[in-house]
Amino acid sequence: MSIQTILKQFKKGLVSEKEILKVIKKIPFSDIEFAKVDHHRVLRRGIPEVIFCEGKTPEQVVRIAEDMYAHHGFVFATRAHKKIFTILQKKFTDICYNELGKVIIIGKNKHQTKKKKTVAIITAGTSDINIAEEAYMTTTTLGSTAIKIYDVGVAGIHRLFRFQDTIENANVLIVIAGMEGALPSVVSGITSKPIIAVPTSKGYGTALGGITALFAMLNSCSPGVTVVNIDNGFGAGYFAHMINN
Amino acid sequence: MSIQTILKQFKKGLVSEKEILKVIKKIPFSDIEFAKVDHHRVLRRGIPEVIFCEGKTPEQVVRIAEDMYAHHGFVFATRAHKKIFTILQKKFTDICYNELGKVIIIGKNKHQTKKKKTVAIITAGTSDINIAEEAYMTTTTLGSTAIKIYDVGVAGIHRLFRFQDTIENANVLIVIAGMEGALPSVVSGITSKPIIAVPTSKGYGTALGGITALFAMLNSCSPGVTVVNIDNGFGAGYFAHMINN
Amino acid sequence: MSIQTILKQFKKGLVSEKEILKVIKKIPFSDIEFAKVDHHRVLRRGIPEVIFCEGKTPEQVVRIAEDMYAHHGFVFATRAHKKIFTILQKKFTDICYNELGKVIIIGKNKHQTKKKKTVAIITAGTSDINIAEEAYMTTTTLGSTAIKIYDVGVAGIHRLFRFQDTIENANVLIVIAGMEGALPSVVSGITSKPIIAVPTSKGYGTALGGITALFAMLNSCSPGVTVVNIDNGFGAGYFAHMINN
Amino acid sequence: MSIQTILKQFKKGLVSEKEILKVIKKIPFSDIEFAKVDHHRVLRRGIPEVIFCEGKTPEQVVRIAEDMYAHHGFVFATRAHKKIFTILQKKFTDICYNELGKVIIIGKNKHQTKKKKTVAIITAGTSDINIAEEAYMTTTTLGSTAIKIYDVGVAGIHRLFRFQDTIENANVLIVIAGMEGALPSVVSGITSKPIIAVPTSKGYGTALGGITALFAMLNSCSPGVTVVNIDNGFGAGYFAHMINN
Amino acid sequence: MSIQTILKQFKKGLVSEKEILKVIKKIPFSDIEFAKVDHHRVLRRGIPEVIFCEGKTPEQVVRIAEDMYAHHGFVFATRAHKKIFTILQKKFTDICYNELGKVIIIGKNKHQTKKKKTVAIITAGTSDINIAEEAYMTTTTLGSTAIKIYDVGVAGIHRLFRFQDTIENANVLIVIAGMEGALPSVVSGITSKPIIAVPTSKGYGTALGGITALFAMLNSCSPGVTVVNIDNGFGAGYFAHMINN
Amino acid sequence: MSIQTILKQFKKGLVSEKEILKVIKKIPFSDIEFAKVDHHRVLRRGIPEVIFCEGKTPEQVVRIAEDMYAHHGFVFATRAHKKIFTILQKKFTDICYNELGKVIIIGKNKHQTKKKKTVAIITAGTSDINIAEEAYMTTTTLGSTAIKIYDVGVAGIHRLFRFQDTIENANVLIVIAGMEGALPSVVSGITSKPIIAVPTSKGYGTALGGITALFAMLNSCSPGVTVVNIDNGFGAGYFAHMINN
Amino acid sequence: MSIQTILKQFKKGLVSEKEILKVIKKIPFSDIEFAKVDHHRVLRRGIPEVIFCEGKTPEQVVRIAEDMYAHHGFVFATRAHKKIFTILQKKFTDICYNELGKVIIIGKNKHQTKKKKTVAIITAGTSDINIAEEAYMTTTTLGSTAIKIYDVGVAGIHRLFRFQDTIENANVLIVIAGMEGALPSVVSGITSKPIIAVPTSKGYGTALGGITALFAMLNSCSPGVTVVNIDNGFGAGYFAHMINN
Amino acid sequence: MSIQTILKQFKKGLVSEKEILKVIKKIPFSDIEFAKVDHHRVLRRGIPEVIFCEGKTPEQVVRIAEDMYAHHGFVFATRAHKKIFTILQKKFTDICYNELGKVIIIGKNKHQTKKKKTVAIITAGTSDINIAEEAYMTTTTLGSTAIKIYDVGVAGIHRLFRFQDTIENANVLIVIAGMEGALPSVVSGITSKPIIAVPTSKGYGTALGGITALFAMLNSCSPGVTVVNIDNGFGAGYFAHMINN
Repeated sequence: MSIQTILKQFKKGLVSEKEILKVIKKIPFSDIEFAKVDHHRVLRRGIPEVIFCEGKTPEQVVRIAEDMYAHHGFVFATRAHKKIFTILQKKFTDICYNELGKVIIIGKNKHQTKKKKTVAIITAGTSDINIAEEAYMTTTTLGSTAIKIYDVGVAGIHRLFRFQDTIENANVLIVIAGMEGALPSVVSGITSKPIIAVPTSKGYGTALGGITALFAMLNSCSPGVTVVNIDNGFGAGYFAHMINN
Repeated sequence: MSIQTILKQFKKGLVSEKEILKVIKKIPFSDIEFAKVDHHRVLRRGIPEVIFCEGKTPEQVVRIAEDMYAHHGFVFATRAHKKIFTILQKKFTDICYNELGKVIIIGKNKHQTKKKKTVAIITAGTSDINIAEEAYMTTTTLGSTAIKIYDVGVAGIHRLFRFQDTIENANVLIVIAGMEGALPSVVSGITSKPIIAVPTSKGYGTALGGITALFAMLNSCSPGVTVVNIDNGFGAGYFAHMINN
Repeated sequence: MSIQTILKQFKKGLVSEKEILKVIKKIPFSDIEFAKVDHHRVLRRGIPEVIFCEGKTPEQVVRIAEDMYAHHGFVFATRAHKKIFTILQKKFTDICYNELGKVIIIGKNKHQTKKKKTVAIITAGTSDINIAEEAYMTTTTLGSTAIKIYDVGVAGIHRLFRFQDTIENANVLIVIAGMEGALPSVVSGITSKPIIAVPTSKGYGTALGGITALFAMLNSCSPGVTVVNIDNGFGAGYFAHMINN
Repeated sequence: MSIQTILKQFKKGLVSEKEILKVIKKIPFSDIEFAKVDHHRVLRRGIPEVIFCEGKTPEQVVRIAEDMYAHHGFVFATRAHKKIFTILQKKFTDICYNELGKVIIIGKNKHQTKKKKTVAIITAGTSDINIAEEAYMTTTTLGSTAIKIYDVGVAGIHRLFRFQDTIENANVLIVIAGMEGALPSVVSGITSKPIIAVPTSKGYGTALGGITALFAMLNSCSPGVTVVNIDNGFGAGYFAHMINN
Repeated sequence: MSIQTILKQFKKGLVSEKEILKVIKKIPFSDIEFAKVDHHRVLRRGIPEVIFCEGKTPEQVVRIAEDMYAHHGFVFATRAHKKIFTILQKKFTDICYNELGKVIIIGKNKHQTKKKKTVAIITAGTSDINIAEEAYMTTTTLGSTAIKIYDVGVAGIHRLFRFQDTIENANVLIVIAGMEGALPSVVSGITSKPIIAVPTSKGYGTALGGITALFAMLNSCSPGVTVVNIDNGFGAGYFAHMINN
Repeated sequence: MSIQTILKQFKKGLVSEKEILKVIKKIPFSDIEFAKVDHHRVLRRGIPEVIFCEGKTPEQVVRIAEDMYAHHGFVFATRAHKKIFTILQKKFTDICYNELGKVIIIGKNKHQTKKKKTVAIITAGTSDINIAEEAYMTTTTLGSTAIKIYDVGVAGIHRLFRFQDTIENANVLIVIAGMEGALPSVVSGITSKPIIAVPTSKGYGTALGGITALFAMLNSCSPGVTVVNIDNGFGAGYFAHMINN
Repeated sequence: MSIQTILKQFKKGLVSEKEILKVIKKIPFSDIEFAKVDHHRVLRRGIPEVIFCEGKTPEQVVRIAEDMYAHHGFVFATRAHKKIFTILQKKFTDICYNELGKVIIIGKNKHQTKKKKTVAIITAGTSDINIAEEAYMTTTTLGSTAIKIYDVGVAGIHRLFRFQDTIENANVLIVIAGMEGALPSVVSGITSKPIIAVPTSKGYGTALGGITALFAMLNSCSPGVTVVNIDNGFGAGYFAHMINN
Repeated sequence: MSIQTILKQFKKGLVSEKEILKVIKKIPFSDIEFAKVDHHRVLRRGIPEVIFCEGKTPEQVVRIAEDMYAHHGFVFATRAHKKIFTILQKKFTDICYNELGKVIIIGKNKHQTKKKKTVAIITAGTSDINIAEEAYMTTTTLGSTAIKIYDVGVAGIHRLFRFQDTIENANVLIVIAGMEGALPSVVSGITSKPIIAVPTSKGYGTALGGITALFAMLNSCSPGVTVVNIDNGFGAGYFAHMINN
């Protein structure tokens, strides 16, 4: 039975809204040869599919973006180099680009759930900022409020204590650090809020491209810390919004 | 100024409750030579310090437990082998032991925050159950409701779909798996709830004691997944309750 | 005794075809100084030697290709960058190039064994397609039929179920995934066909250039999965054809 | 609609056999608290669920075995230490135990598909034999014929050549080796049959518990080799039978 | 020329003390078959050779101890299990044993350099204490003063701040931590004293037997931290005394 | 109470110097949006904050340098590529650049503590010199005297012995080596001075970018060696000066 | 044609000794079910097959030993625990056991090639001696002369220089070390003899069971060093004799 | 006493040649600021110091080459990119360059020891040739004869057997392979000659830049194989000549 038939039955009242939603959850995606764009993710997950640009050709990104824009009037793309932005800019007018965070937004997220709850985004150093910006763009686009507390690493721990009230007033914390990745443990020791720790690939030698920070965060002696992949600002921002929601 | 003085001032109304709480947050712990028992953690974090038994002698565990019980009337100990339980049983009457989860509880958690919100604890296999029980004991002791869905790994994915409604009705999911660690990704694809993934050390060869499951979970292609350390059921249960709270 | 003598005896009927094949299996290759081109592989393995272009200079590739073409009228080269194709194009007219899969074919494989049996080539994401194309070119050039099912990863598992019948009708499955490498386990749980899993180097951070996907696949909790090297689309296509054969 | 209703309709001829099989494929498993025994796997995969004993308590193994025996009259258990066999022996009379391969069989596999096709199981050394026996028990229980060629490693390569005809007459080869894992490459170079390579944890120092053999096998310079997890004789025997089938 | 001759010339005043010390620095050790006991280390390094008991048979330890005692009236042995102490106790009367630190001392270190300078030995947790005791025994035996500050990890950072004055009054700090190894970074941020960081093998999962703590410490974002091998309390105590000296 | 008020009280003599220093240690840093410049580090640690240029944009480096220069009349920047020097050169006149060591110094370090104590900086090979120069610039800028002994690795150990007196006259040794990292062990065996070992990323194959040298140094069989991160000449120079101080 | 026929022809003079040796090199081994004893290795390699006892049951060792003794009157077994020796002792009278080196010799090696050339076996520490004894037993059983220089590691490098002449008089050096593995580099720098380096699994923490020593040895900055597997005293002794031969 | 004085005494016959050689062995090297050129290595090791160009600036290479040429009339440089050759070509006339092997030779090695003994250099593939050429240049420059057998890997093992006689006639074998590194094991099984195995960084995925080939070679099940660092053709050629010598 086709989706068209079901929709007609729905109009006639033969099928309830609840039932039709269930059906839709199991079906539709656009098949554009090299990609199956997952259009009902917006129903299932509360946000349309996101384009992860790394490893895709500009042509592939453009075609997926066009398909998504046609369905949702909204496109969210991460890890987008300036070159990709320049190409998309010629096709879309309501486009904006966060260069530090490498995030492109086209149109408007109609499924945004405006919440008053706040995410505090904290970085250990200046070089962790690009990951922080990716998290910021993600969580605010989804509907959360966010504040930024950058460069308050443990080498000068008094800088962190200055923000103790701001931190305690937030609902969730995203704590971003490279090198020894100690900041989430320390923040966790002084707050009662859940922490999403993001290891970054910053550092050299035994920093091992973020593996050391990751393992340190997973071994936090203070409970209340979970971890996402190295440099995964998007995943942290997404999860923070899920908690707020 | 001593804590005694402040308390007297508080009684006289010269110091507000809010102020005295702030002061207390910065001071007390019992110094019993080999351990600084952190008694105000209950204020700072909403749960008293937890005894991680691994790497401590039974004598050390007993002394820390006695100190904590004297202050809070409550002790929560993880990674407790039966031998430690047998020793503690002689000292405390209101003690109970979850052997699978290796958790000991003495007395009653007066800071428990009874919530109606539910944590669904899902395991891929039968051998992941001990970690699941640790998570269950932790999250329910803190005050969350929890339900168990065990042995629904991806080798027979229809077993998982049977529980799809139960999963969607929970507020947070803890998904526990060893070997290839694929279950959190799959569960994430079919739900809109935040997932705390727990890799376990189950498996052999390239399972690498849980490293493979951990890395797989960190690389989940579906957003909404964060990860805790290998076999860290406690951390997952703790974090799940923080989200519920 | 020289190969010439044996051939004469064979013509006279003194040596049977079976015997002479055995002898030939043990002898000939062209010695072109820096390479011993293995001309009897076509007898021993049912396919001529394949040129793996990576780590060879264009000059070396050209000379080996010329030698192989002279013997078999057929050349199959993998990991061939466009530059190498451009050079070879000037020497051979019956040449074609699959740019995504980086495969060059010159002439026609006379040892192709046309089979009706089908290989289904399934990828988790769009960025795994170049490896899928290498597998496709290999298995079809050898004589198998192949169909492509791209971008059906576990983040939207309903996309996979849509193809369940197509999958069950194939004789062998090649399942290609990077990041957490969960797709082969999931596919294996819903089919009775043998699966050749190919980890790809797609992903970042703890994806470790494909090691995580590889280890996850090796630990598949569902039996019926074997694995080839990271990004080894050629090996998978080759093995799939061996099963069909 | 319950499974009972469907079965009644089936009896009345209102539901065809094909349809009811489809339905059944999506439903039944026994929920015995700590395990969801997957009873329809025999339909989906052609073999009932297998009990992997490692990491399960003897009590858990007994209960799962009883449940499986009640449904299928057949139990297949791997990684079973003698202790588990001794316990099960008291409950089942038609039980047998392969001590080297650590495999227990209870009853008879009614879904066995007797084939004339042969699997040759080849080991590099004497210490790889326990893995070979696991593969042998698996593949023959499923219905394949198997022959054993043990201790023919590359240190004395003439031992291998002695068996060249036997090897060429088999339909699939399982090649098992620890240490440097070179045997699959060498066998692959002299045959046209598909090879399932099994790395073993035998060796010391840089053998790294089988990782070195595994990586060597994945890098085989000769195509036609796929690999399973370290010491995974079961997986190899299972896959070999899938190819035969 | 033998050492005897030189000593006679020294007595007669033909060779100065400075010269004879130079000569002695280049010569003597006892050859007791399986060990070359390095007796002039006391001159070259200011402390006699130390017996590292791990990997030596009790017999070997006894013979080396006897040889060292005969020359210096002093033996210092690390990583000594109780069994070895029990054996040595029968041979030596002026022996003492620190069971936590696994250190045996026989006789008296005549080369001890009594200094007023203090080493503060700080641990993150209770389970790091055995390593701390090894450091304590080493540095005090060499002649430094030492104070212990145990169980002040970052999960309750206020416990550390309580000791800030004590820390600032020390001359060198030894900071010992397992798990995420964050303590040295944090201590370094609040003091101007040099820190010797000791990672311990405490923890589980991605603690990797101390590798994670080690790498975290090496990546300290705060300068003034150097690191010794995992669990190397001896090395830290030794180095701390060198700085004091 | 603001810092202004405290300063006024200090002028009036109501607050002692000691007290005001304590207060200041807990407060000030400049917040320039993306960085919290830690101005009181000069009080807490005896040296102003250092700019680690790697991972910062030139614009960020310039702004931090301007802020630091305004407060301290002094800037010390490491890992500074020539491009950054060229940009800074246009803004500051009293600037100098050590190209080998990639260190920029602007102005004059007023907190320099001129000591007569010497640091000997020893390298195994010529390719370790850039790290040695970073250590040299750091330790001399802080106020230590330093001498260079380059290219005296163990392949020609007599070259090292030639400098034995110079080494013994120094107060601390920095020993820098890549490849097998054996030099610190050997130097340690012939001296009584503390050694800070610096592994470098020089070498190929199993040198693993300095991991092998690092691990070798951590396992030095001779005590008196501590280690800093791979290529961390800055950390070694800093620590050496702390010992001298 | 059977080996019997060839031997008869040889006796009659129809086949030369050279030809029959060639034939024999390609054929015989005893097939005792679980092992193919390689009897012509003595011709091909100049030494009969060696029994590596690890991973073999005592029964398997006994049967292989009996087969070998019957053919060659000589058995050489490595990694033999005392238990295996006790069993074999009951079967063979001309047996001897080196307990430190875990080597069993039965009978007499008739293919021994007595050479005057000497192998110097040098260890860094006392705990490396068991590996040294394995090397000693191997090389002397094959026919080389050997001398032992134990416990001369770089912590007291003057102990090594005392043996400089002995070292220079040997033909080959076997240098054995755990921990940082620096000794082969240092010895190589002072001699003109080829060095076979053996890393041992002695050490703790980052010694990584010998990996660190192995990698250090492979990175020796001084040429003339090759390396065998961790703890492979047998391989070193064997190779040393091949050079002498 | 200066070297000048000793030389005068030698001329007068007061010091024997043997004694002066001993003295010289302990002293001279040129100190050219950034390098201590080790001129007596020619006496100690039988070959002058070799310039490893990687990690050195062209200016440093030129200055070291000039110093060495002035002393020995001979320079041997490895890992020399064409750019360095072009620069040196302007300074030296008697220079030649092996581009594949990246080796530069200036002048003539007067210490060459012409031997009739042969080194066979065998590679598994075409891409291993550049390492083979480095080995060839090294061993022949030192005085050994060498023959090349390229591209005879185990994928077509008959190609290797064709060269069995040539191999057996050599005195030492250098066997070079990337990927699974199986060739040394196989060659070792069919010869009685010592083998120096060289792993190369050729391959992809789990080849891990040569680590897999290295570990496979170290685990060779056939004795008589030692190993050098990844891509270390120089070390292999050097060691082969030491055996010949």
